[in-house]
Amino acid sequence: MAEFLTEAKHRTGAQSPDRHEAAVILERTRASVDPELRLAIDALPGSMRRIALYHFGWEHADGTPAAGNPGKAIRPALVLTAAAALGGPAAREAALRAAAAVELVHNFTLLHDDVMDRDTTRRHRPTAWTVFGDTDAILAGDALQALALGLLAEDPHPAAAPASARLAACVVELCAGQHADTAMERRGPGDVTLDEVLTMAEAKTGALIGCACAVGALYAGAPGEDVAALDAFGREAGLAFQLIDDVIGIWGDPRRTGKPAGSDLAARKKSLPVVAALTSGTPAASELAELYAMPYGKEGEAQDGEEIARTALAVERAGGRDWAQVQAADRMARAMHELSRAVADPAEAGGLLALLEYVTRRST
Amino acid sequence: MAEFLTEAKHRTGAQSPDRHEAAVILERTRASVDPELRLAIDALPGSMRRIALYHFGWEHADGTPAAGNPGKAIRPALVLTAAAALGGPAAREAALRAAAAVELVHNFTLLHDDVMDRDTTRRHRPTAWTVFGDTDAILAGDALQALALGLLAEDPHPAAAPASARLAACVVELCAGQHADTAMERRGPGDVTLDEVLTMAEAKTGALIGCACAVGALYAGAPGEDVAALDAFGREAGLAFQLIDDVIGIWGDPRRTGKPAGSDLAARKKSLPVVAALTSGTPAASELAELYAMPYGKEGEAQDGEEIARTALAVERAGGRDWAQVQAADRMARAMHELSRAVADPAEAGGLLALLEYVTRRST
Repeated sequence: MAEFLTEAKHRTGAQSPDRHEAAVILERTRASVDPELRLAIDALPGSMRRIALYHFGWEHADGTPAAGNPGKAIRPALVLTAAAALGGPAAREAALRAAAAVELVHNFTLLHDDVMDRDTTRRHRPTAWTVFGDTDAILAGDALQALALGLLAEDPHPAAAPASARLAACVVELCAGQHADTAMERRGPGDVTLDEVLTMAEAKTGALIGCACAVGALYAGAPGEDVAALDAFGREAGLAFQLIDDVIGIWGDPRRTGKPAGSDLAARKKSLPVVAALTSGTPAASELAELYAMPYGKEGEAQDGEEIARTALAVERAGGRDWAQVQAADRMARAMHELSRAVADPAEAGGLLALLEYVTRRST
Repeated sequence: MAEFLTEAKHRTGAQSPDRHEAAVILERTRASVDPELRLAIDALPGSMRRIALYHFGWEHADGTPAAGNPGKAIRPALVLTAAAALGGPAAREAALRAAAAVELVHNFTLLHDDVMDRDTTRRHRPTAWTVFGDTDAILAGDALQALALGLLAEDPHPAAAPASARLAACVVELCAGQHADTAMERRGPGDVTLDEVLTMAEAKTGALIGCACAVGALYAGAPGEDVAALDAFGREAGLAFQLIDDVIGIWGDPRRTGKPAGSDLAARKKSLPVVAALTSGTPAASELAELYAMPYGKEGEAQDGEEIARTALAVERAGGRDWAQVQAADRMARAMHELSRAVADPAEAGGLLALLEYVTRRST
């Protein structure tokens, strides 16, 4: 596993064949899923359509058309690529509506999470609640959930009902994950265990990525154990993604992440590397706990950069960075193992592996 | 129609055979649907289960068991009674899960509406957001919507998919209705038309009552035109209910409504009789517009009761009360006409007529 990561580090993003393959898959996904999404959203009543079109980047706040920047479409890409890996091009084609449904669920949770977390920026634009208010952002999210499950209810494919049941169960898990996340952020830095934060990350990030892969497998007519293996593949991939996202949130290059350096630390976020560090029992853990107990910015702006650097160093010295990278590698190994159980032929697994590598190797 | 209402007024609530029949139907509905609801809610993750059990009145805020006061179950009663009317006892039995799904959707909207409207009391208890906070009330609502559509996705009955598609489309309409309601409350009293407020009431109240009846018809295997007639029956019944609810909100006996007299007027709510009065072009309409333009309570507590009485009188003199009662009677006539298209035998329509009379004749 260590060699895998070492080798991966030697490749630069642009030249990696996997990275190129992933980019092609994502672009092709957008081209096939966007028309389904637009069709569904255009059928909404005017008030809900307007908010959805803004959120997806297809309209400006004043209702004029916009170029659109509706995210990377990783989840629908996983639906289609899993369907193709297990059932060929016909299964991919059959799963288009389900891919749109998964993307709608993802965006419903983004609309609601932004309201709850008071996040003001999403995909480089003001979040919907800052433009339309809390009420309309909540209602648009509710409508997108209904639209997603309604799409599947209208789909005559035999996989539609089990896919819908899985997606509905996944929404419940996403809600529990978001609850755990917000509840955890209100607790003291010493009160959160590593198990808790891993369970939360699996519910909040792993569940929908696993569900996307499982839905693709269902549309390929795969047997139950392959659907379960694809779900497990996605969950492990999702956790690896979250671990690396958290590492980037602390040590990533602000020019590439688009977020100020150390903003997660400034917000005292109990991210995975931070909780690993806090629970490490090292002297650096005590130092980190002390820093986290103080509200950020207490010492004035001149000290802020220095404080963030000290905090990041404490996480690193307490082993949080290494732990997260070893965990991420371990999760990727588990993901590949699960995938190999359902898709024995490496050629057929290629697309899913490219997406796995894409989501877990960004700007670290 | 006038005779219908006159006759209805002569009957007192307790002695009316329809009222007794409705009470029996509602009690029987609770007895058959509550176990389905409990089963679904008990399967939620702990954090979401706790909020749902509180909202349904099955637990106190501290998690200890409560007697439960989970509403009147009118919507699931309509599902089951429509199924029985068109398909007999076997259809009623088959529709139990769908009835629970409709009740879950209703309760998801209550959880979210209470957050948006900042309502602090629901079924004589503090609303969920006042106990658990906005975030958890929103998440529990999201989870209940998923639970509802998930129940239908797991139901092997051939009506489950079309019922799920209808219920999902209904959620979208409910969202648009709630949007219109909140947007309208922010506008000036002279800026709202009667058409707008009728459309809003149909979306917010009529849609789910119509959907409940249509879902029952689907589980009875009824042909498309009967499903549409049952939907129209429920929509008209829902509008009649809303009209009478609005009349009660102004002239109802506070001892029977549980709300202070004239609280809708004090809140300057643009209810149906108020908008009818405001748009009547009468001198009383101008007086009402002037009263509504002033914030309530401006003149001190001693004047409040007098002001509410003056406002109620202005609505009445501008014809708002008569209009609402004539409209309600008209909607009930339309409802009965729609019902007779799908259920020719009055004996089979009896249960639905009893429920129609129950919801439209409370404490007026």
